[in-house]
Amino acid sequence: MSIIFYSSDDNSELAVHAIKNALAEYEVTTWPAAHPEKIRYAITWGAPEGFFNDLTGLEAIFSWGAGVDHLFNNPELPDVPVYRLEDAGMADKIADYVLYSVMSWQRNFKMYISQQAKMVWQPQKERSSADYHIGIMGMGVIGSRIAERLATSGYSVSGWKRTPGTATAITLFSGLEQLDEFLQSLDTLVCILPLTKETRQIINQRVFNSIPKGTQFINVGRGEHVVESDLLEALDNGQVSDAVLDVCVTEPLPLEHFLWKHPKVTITPHIAGPTQEMLSAEEVAKGIRVLSIGGTPDGLVDRVKGY
Amino acid sequence: MSIIFYSSDDNSELAVHAIKNALAEYEVTTWPAAHPEKIRYAITWGAPEGFFNDLTGLEAIFSWGAGVDHLFNNPELPDVPVYRLEDAGMADKIADYVLYSVMSWQRNFKMYISQQAKMVWQPQKERSSADYHIGIMGMGVIGSRIAERLATSGYSVSGWKRTPGTATAITLFSGLEQLDEFLQSLDTLVCILPLTKETRQIINQRVFNSIPKGTQFINVGRGEHVVESDLLEALDNGQVSDAVLDVCVTEPLPLEHFLWKHPKVTITPHIAGPTQEMLSAEEVAKGIRVLSIGGTPDGLVDRVKGY
Repeated sequence: MSIIFYSSDDNSELAVHAIKNALAEYEVTTWPAAHPEKIRYAITWGAPEGFFNDLTGLEAIFSWGAGVDHLFNNPELPDVPVYRLEDAGMADKIADYVLYSVMSWQRNFKMYISQQAKMVWQPQKERSSADYHIGIMGMGVIGSRIAERLATSGYSVSGWKRTPGTATAITLFSGLEQLDEFLQSLDTLVCILPLTKETRQIINQRVFNSIPKGTQFINVGRGEHVVESDLLEALDNGQVSDAVLDVCVTEPLPLEHFLWKHPKVTITPHIAGPTQEMLSAEEVAKGIRVLSIGGTPDGLVDRVKGY
Repeated sequence: MSIIFYSSDDNSELAVHAIKNALAEYEVTTWPAAHPEKIRYAITWGAPEGFFNDLTGLEAIFSWGAGVDHLFNNPELPDVPVYRLEDAGMADKIADYVLYSVMSWQRNFKMYISQQAKMVWQPQKERSSADYHIGIMGMGVIGSRIAERLATSGYSVSGWKRTPGTATAITLFSGLEQLDEFLQSLDTLVCILPLTKETRQIINQRVFNSIPKGTQFINVGRGEHVVESDLLEALDNGQVSDAVLDVCVTEPLPLEHFLWKHPKVTITPHIAGPTQEMLSAEEVAKGIRVLSIGGTPDGLVDRVKGY
């Protein structure tokens, strides 16, 4: 009875080490496995073609990340339950990334960098945090953590999700019918939605025209949430004053892409929520142990909803 | 019975408005006063020459900021009690500034800016916050708030102060005899000391040689805490990897100064803890009301210690 691990990321060795430590009672193999029929659980990020072949005893798949679009885009995905990392330290990292990006704009840090280049010493007016409105699209585990982090930092925070729900301490909007109301008073719009067929390209001209002129946009979801040509138009007509993008439609971002050079855009290479090997291995190990005694671990993905 | 206000900052009008609102029972005048003999309290930042002349009835001075060096450097300062702003919203602002500056280094945001300029998509290894050591020189009201903010953000934090004291949740060092021990394991050194004759130029070659090679340095205290030529040497020999300076010996920083152009230096124009007029007026008003019934407000400055 064994476990197979594969990640297209750089840190596979660290990850395998962490998983072996956390699940010492199992044999942990890498791909391709010598005895695929013995594999009961697969832990994977970006599985290569043929990865799921011959895994005849497979009982569950664990995504080595918060997103599962890499799995559901795979036509070879077997019909077994899929679990995703719900936190594993990522939520705090992404919340910090968003807080940093908000401050870079609200507290004028970007402007001070350009002032320094011109040797200009000029304090700028600063918006008070209490009057600064941040809207979070996507209110799952990570979105809620972002909201909490920003609210305790003194910002005015609201959230939007596709389906109705409840939230403490912040105003929550839901459904497409409340999207305009959610968007209309924002200073910063944050995307941390799951990528599904309903949310693909959800951030388009319609959204950019509904936010107040000069809104900041932060994307820590997926590049495919955004129609990049609509974003370019919004940057150029001033609807979006500043864009911080940790994700793009094509990654790595191609050399000729306009996003690299646009003066209002900051690009980071998908690092907002780096997978933390130790914490992730512990979360997966906990899930596998719950499964092994017949329970249902946290993070079960609904195949219809796609998250 | 009246109050005089003077600030060398731009926002005097806002400040006067806030003080009049907070202290409606007093006449609030600006400088020069028509009836200086009626002035009982002075609220001031950077008083001009002659400001204290003829204030024959003056009973107390309130600094319109956290620092009081601007008062004690004034040879005309009358011999009445001096009170300083202890928080008035500044502590949170400065704590956020420090958190931002730590993240810019620890989470490689500065490197990603230079990667973007070269169109390079390359995630960088990231130090875990728990293993990242931040040392705070100056553990008064603001230093303690910085320590708390960083500790709750998951960093490993220690503090140093000149005189012995206690702190919860962090390791506290005190006195020059424990300075080396405090410095030897840091990843970031933060200065938020008061400026006194004992702390002037305290951050010099000796300190830069005691920190580990490659330490980040953040100054939210005063420029005069630092020997700038020693900082230049430390930047160039690699002891300091990155310097974030909100304060300089001469402000505004002169055009020809090396700090503007040094590739490892970020300059902001003394904006880490902007005076917040409403909150500051409320804090001063509270102090004046405590005085008026014979009590002692918070923020009384010890003239011997200088803070």
